[in-house]
Amino acid sequence: MRYFEDIRVGDADDIGQHTFAAEEIKSFAQRFDPQPFHVDEAAAARSHFGALCASGWHTAAVWMRLMVDHSRRAIEAQRARGEPVAAFGPALGFRDLKWLKPVYVGDTIAYRSEVVETRASTSRPGSGLLTIRSTGTNQNGDLVISFVSTTLIERRPEKT
Amino acid sequence: MRYFEDIRVGDADDIGQHTFAAEEIKSFAQRFDPQPFHVDEAAAARSHFGALCASGWHTAAVWMRLMVDHSRRAIEAQRARGEPVAAFGPALGFRDLKWLKPVYVGDTIAYRSEVVETRASTSRPGSGLLTIRSTGTNQNGDLVISFVSTTLIERRPEKT
Repeated sequence: MRYFEDIRVGDADDIGQHTFAAEEIKSFAQRFDPQPFHVDEAAAARSHFGALCASGWHTAAVWMRLMVDHSRRAIEAQRARGEPVAAFGPALGFRDLKWLKPVYVGDTIAYRSEVVETRASTSRPGSGLLTIRSTGTNQNGDLVISFVSTTLIERRPEKT
Repeated sequence: MRYFEDIRVGDADDIGQHTFAAEEIKSFAQRFDPQPFHVDEAAAARSHFGALCASGWHTAAVWMRLMVDHSRRAIEAQRARGEPVAAFGPALGFRDLKWLKPVYVGDTIAYRSEVVETRASTSRPGSGLLTIRSTGTNQNGDLVISFVSTTLIERRPEKT
């Protein structure tokens, strides 16, 4: 992670992508969202979705996983280059979480995050507030999930 | 589910409660949020959380599960009384998702939803928009999660 001062509005990262298989869609939904169109192909075919599709919470949880992995890779790369790694997180909140299209079996969702706002924290002088819009887009270019989150990130220490 | 016309701002429902065990916290996090404080007791003890705690996405997914079960019980009770059941869902979006306190091993979270706004849909004459604030509160009375969601709900059919 870069320091707050090195991050600009418009900076964007490809976080990773994931193809949703029927078994994991049903497994997540059986545990957390057992609505017919998430757990049963035949019932899903009769629903307004027309086919089995992933719980929205599943598509959000997959983003979280890809983001953790992406952050780790970024940190490892910084360490390998001998660069300092800024402390960050956790997220202070999420807003405008929207599920815009269903995620069907076999869909590959590419997740991307873009910096939409940066501002210094008034209550924590050593931190900045980083606001990102995260999106997931399917293989047809349709936006399927979008949300905005704000995270604390370390400011560059002053030289002494 | 009641028809849109039968729902009032301020109506509240206890959705259910859930006690978070260490194994499920780690199992969810290993799959979706493998940060040290969600998957490893010793690492969590050294983190700013001080002990193993659940992924925020896990606490949201548990709400979803309890809400599905709660809705089913409500629908079954309506059917048993011979009442009509209004069509509803899916949620159009979520906003202001906040994780306000950590959820530690053994914490029991009571989820509650309160109607904060009702309005007729201009684009869908047969539907109303129901906005609820959902919260999770731990056994000490601390709010741990809060979010607002809007769902389509059927209007009472006009008598013919």
